Amino acid sequence: MMSSKIEFCKLDYIKEKIRSINSDLILVIADLNVWSHYSKLLPLMNIEGKKVVFWKAPDGEKVKDFENLSSAIEFFLSKNVHRKAHLVSLGGGATSDFSGMVAALLLRGIEWSTIPTTLLSMVDAGIGGKVAINSPQGKNLIGAFYHPTNIWICDSFLETLDEREWSSGAGEIVKYGFLSKEIGEKIIPDVDIKTLIKSCVLYKEEVVANDFKESGERKKLNFGHTFGHAIEVEYQIPHGLAVVWGILLVDILFNEGKLIPRAKELIENLKIELGDSPWLNKEFPVDKIMKYLRKDKKTTSSELIEFVVVKDIGNVEFHSISFNEVENKLIENKDVIRKLTI
Amino acid sequence: MMSSKIEFCKLDYIKEKIRSINSDLILVIADLNVWSHYSKLLPLMNIEGKKVVFWKAPDGEKVKDFENLSSAIEFFLSKNVHRKAHLVSLGGGATSDFSGMVAALLLRGIEWSTIPTTLLSMVDAGIGGKVAINSPQGKNLIGAFYHPTNIWICDSFLETLDEREWSSGAGEIVKYGFLSKEIGEKIIPDVDIKTLIKSCVLYKEEVVANDFKESGERKKLNFGHTFGHAIEVEYQIPHGLAVVWGILLVDILFNEGKLIPRAKELIENLKIELGDSPWLNKEFPVDKIMKYLRKDKKTTSSELIEFVVVKDIGNVEFHSISFNEVENKLIENKDVIRKLTI
Repeated sequence: MMSSKIEFCKLDYIKEKIRSINSDLILVIADLNVWSHYSKLLPLMNIEGKKVVFWKAPDGEKVKDFENLSSAIEFFLSKNVHRKAHLVSLGGGATSDFSGMVAALLLRGIEWSTIPTTLLSMVDAGIGGKVAINSPQGKNLIGAFYHPTNIWICDSFLETLDEREWSSGAGEIVKYGFLSKEIGEKIIPDVDIKTLIKSCVLYKEEVVANDFKESGERKKLNFGHTFGHAIEVEYQIPHGLAVVWGILLVDILFNEGKLIPRAKELIENLKIELGDSPWLNKEFPVDKIMKYLRKDKKTTSSELIEFVVVKDIGNVEFHSISFNEVENKLIENKDVIRKLTI
Repeated sequence: MMSSKIEFCKLDYIKEKIRSINSDLILVIADLNVWSHYSKLLPLMNIEGKKVVFWKAPDGEKVKDFENLSSAIEFFLSKNVHRKAHLVSLGGGATSDFSGMVAALLLRGIEWSTIPTTLLSMVDAGIGGKVAINSPQGKNLIGAFYHPTNIWICDSFLETLDEREWSSGAGEIVKYGFLSKEIGEKIIPDVDIKTLIKSCVLYKEEVVANDFKESGERKKLNFGHTFGHAIEVEYQIPHGLAVVWGILLVDILFNEGKLIPRAKELIENLKIELGDSPWLNKEFPVDKIMKYLRKDKKTTSSELIEFVVVKDIGNVEFHSISFNEVENKLIENKDVIRKLTI
């Protein structure tokens, strides 16, 4: 299956959606934190006519390792899972990344559906079938392409998001604002977030449908992510914020910083609390960042790495350059980078 | 990719084949035992113009667990693997099952090729893109569908096979002899094994090409495997021999044992040392076998399991029946089963 069925629905309807799945066995992977807020509003333990098996996922990225993967898979196998079983993921991007891996590997693949509960996963991680766990060597280095059957987006979950999570999700919307002129134009002060989510989802779905395995066009969705992943791990900051810093760095290195004023506008309109750069007035850690880059999935040989560069809104280029060149560019621009702030 | 390029080639040519792969980084997973025999004849450590990274796999099925999967993947990641890296598997079915999992998950999938070194993997496990590791709950319960780019079949490896390994591979050929009239007719006394390997490979490739994800026709390749897997684990006997016993059991339960005389002929012509059944003159362990069956991937709901039944050579049916019915059939036929011998 090359695409998912995406529906926007009220919290109350989700149980009905699950009830209508054609399977007698529902496996649920729920983020512990989400479950502590929503177990009463969304009573998934009992679904008429189904056996429901529950695995609670440690909060956030922590779940995405081999130990948890093995433990969840063995747990479901011990419950006599069969090929027509259907897995439901309830949580943010980490939970759906992880759940998709479990679904992909259980009995060589069972169907799954996801209920993204963070802004970030609604506009990005929940969509497109990229699933993964992390390695000590870097984020998402172990994974698969495995589309969920259904994505149920329910904006009630946004009510319990804190500001940090909001900013993280909105950071990913900044990316869309650069890739798509149409989305960029919608990011006005006091924009309705539901409208924006829909636009981002539809945009991503279209890009993914055209290039499921990321051999071409889909790669543009990685805009800001090469530096972003490195920054996220190095400074332990939320994904979406790290992506914003990644976008700014790429723009400085490959586009003379021309898009920085526009980035500032988008950040303000989306009410993102970006704060100072983690390296403000310190030395940007070129060596460490280069180490992360060398482990990045986007490298295509032992010598080259590919960057997504937005020259102007909606005008995307791919630059394959050597690691040495990247390093030189970082060193050349180190003063600008050190002082970078929004 | 929905199929592999299959080539029959001399041992001497394999290195040249690898040299011609379009990648600067070759990852090799080699079965320790095979490597101890062939490291001189097949010096894969040094390939002109390539960086080669080696991971040696514990002998046989032992490699197929999460611990080894994690260890091989982390090892390759620590060597700065990139998306265009190409993995080469050298070994039997266990090695290629495992290597395919590594290739499938590394950076969400890199290309791989396999050099099957046992008769069993040449006619079966190496072909068709089914890759897996084992669970304490059963064999191959954790896996994916991930086709190798190349399969290089080189019959020199058969020279170092012992009788047990020979019989195990030939057991899988018995299966083909029932599924395909054409192959069945080729299994005459003193048949040339190379001819048989080719016929089996071409047959399997065709079936797989028509039904990669095993939703229809491909399922017939599971003939004998439902009971076979259970017997293999319960009695720790080689896969191919367990499949032969599985075929005989299915024939007793679903076909009044009509094909047993033909099975006897095939077994003799292929010089398979089947020996007595592991339960001869003892009680067939119905309860234990039923436990394995309930964990089998081929179950399609919590109540039903699907059996492949060959009514007559080339005439295949699928029977979905309840676990209770299977159990009753085993009990009804327990005297025939106890005395079963070839």
